[in-house]
Amino acid sequence: MNVDKEFFSNITSRERAIFEGGISMGALFHQFIGTPVNEKTKENLEKTIENSLKLQPAVENVDVTIDSEKLKEISEFEYISLNGDMLNVLIQTKINDISVDIRLEFIKELNYPLMYVEEIRTIRKD
Amino acid sequence: MNVDKEFFSNITSRERAIFEGGISMGALFHQFIGTPVNEKTKENLEKTIENSLKLQPAVENVDVTIDSEKLKEISEFEYISLNGDMLNVLIQTKINDISVDIRLEFIKELNYPLMYVEEIRTIRKD
Amino acid sequence: MNVDKEFFSNITSRERAIFEGGISMGALFHQFIGTPVNEKTKENLEKTIENSLKLQPAVENVDVTIDSEKLKEISEFEYISLNGDMLNVLIQTKINDISVDIRLEFIKELNYPLMYVEEIRTIRKD
Amino acid sequence: MNVDKEFFSNITSRERAIFEGGISMGALFHQFIGTPVNEKTKENLEKTIENSLKLQPAVENVDVTIDSEKLKEISEFEYISLNGDMLNVLIQTKINDISVDIRLEFIKELNYPLMYVEEIRTIRKD
Repeated sequence: MNVDKEFFSNITSRERAIFEGGISMGALFHQFIGTPVNEKTKENLEKTIENSLKLQPAVENVDVTIDSEKLKEISEFEYISLNGDMLNVLIQTKINDISVDIRLEFIKELNYPLMYVEEIRTIRKD
Repeated sequence: MNVDKEFFSNITSRERAIFEGGISMGALFHQFIGTPVNEKTKENLEKTIENSLKLQPAVENVDVTIDSEKLKEISEFEYISLNGDMLNVLIQTKINDISVDIRLEFIKELNYPLMYVEEIRTIRKD
Repeated sequence: MNVDKEFFSNITSRERAIFEGGISMGALFHQFIGTPVNEKTKENLEKTIENSLKLQPAVENVDVTIDSEKLKEISEFEYISLNGDMLNVLIQTKINDISVDIRLEFIKELNYPLMYVEEIRTIRKD
Repeated sequence: MNVDKEFFSNITSRERAIFEGGISMGALFHQFIGTPVNEKTKENLEKTIENSLKLQPAVENVDVTIDSEKLKEISEFEYISLNGDMLNVLIQTKINDISVDIRLEFIKELNYPLMYVEEIRTIRKD
């Protein structure tokens, strides 16, 4: 089965790169929110979230940062559940010659972990 | 803060409708996979997944079907964990005059719960 | 296969009721944290969490309350992700003549959603 | 606040070790089911699940094995969602001089990822 032809011929490379980035960002948030974390496990968890999401279609790169400041608001038991306001994430997708950066960032003014398209690039083929 | 102007002026209505649909589909899958379910709780769970995802930006409608056949492959304890191969979902998003249908469907040939853009409509304003 | 004999003959009814209650409380928390919710969907979500967890072994009853006050700290997009500090849950398990109440409650002083055994009863058989 | 005295004086060390093990096993299952995984990311994911759960109260050790055989039933996109039938987990908890082993194991005959108490030890203090 030719997946691209069968299911994605109705949208452009740019649209598909945006679509796949959206899927992966929604997936990341709802898969990992709630995970126990503290300063000691932070780096390993960031790496695992990155590696897991890089498996998804069109995802080229993932960069996850868990806010160290937020990890200081720790519980009596010296860890907290990963929360939407601790995450800053960049997911880069690529379809053909289009590369898209999707950002997840907690916007204080909105009290909301906003996901948006940060940049769209056409990759030159020489 | 004007969110649309601040964060979404670099993409078209069509692209944003596709983006928000992708986010919500990724969210749905990774939030609810694993939920205990059987034939008795199926309808209520479908409804709750629909209502939860309808809260997200640009989402107009959500239609979730959990495969009754799959619910027959039940465990000794008379329920199973919700799994990607049991789900058929339609999410409809709308940005300005563009309406997009996103589909999640388990494609046997791919052994994969595929998410794709099923239809894109321009809504006539008379 | 006799599950009770095979896997649970090394613990008492009281211990198993406590064990199954612990499992279901951990499951509830980590399954549903992150779910989009607001005042309108709250009741339906509570009901679905209750119905889902009641499917698990030994669980007799589940009572979920999402804190309405917390739902007022809403985002620009008029919903929030379900969080550990919004939940008050009672799970009742029963093994033979022992009934156990497990509580999940956010304890401000600990900054922690604590799970504990609230009550243990022996059910009289007349 | 003395948490042990306030919330756990109604159960024995043995019961609490069983309770905390149950919580952590339920948490583990419902937090990580759905995570994208393949043979390449398996080891790192196992380690992260172990580290995350070791943060929870009374948990001394966690050992996670994702079944390599199951990872061969891979999708067109060369990964799968972590599923209950791929997991074999040991969680060791300790309260005072009691150490408890909790096991999660997929029992084919039950078509169910069973959680049970594998062993209970009294630790000698010399």
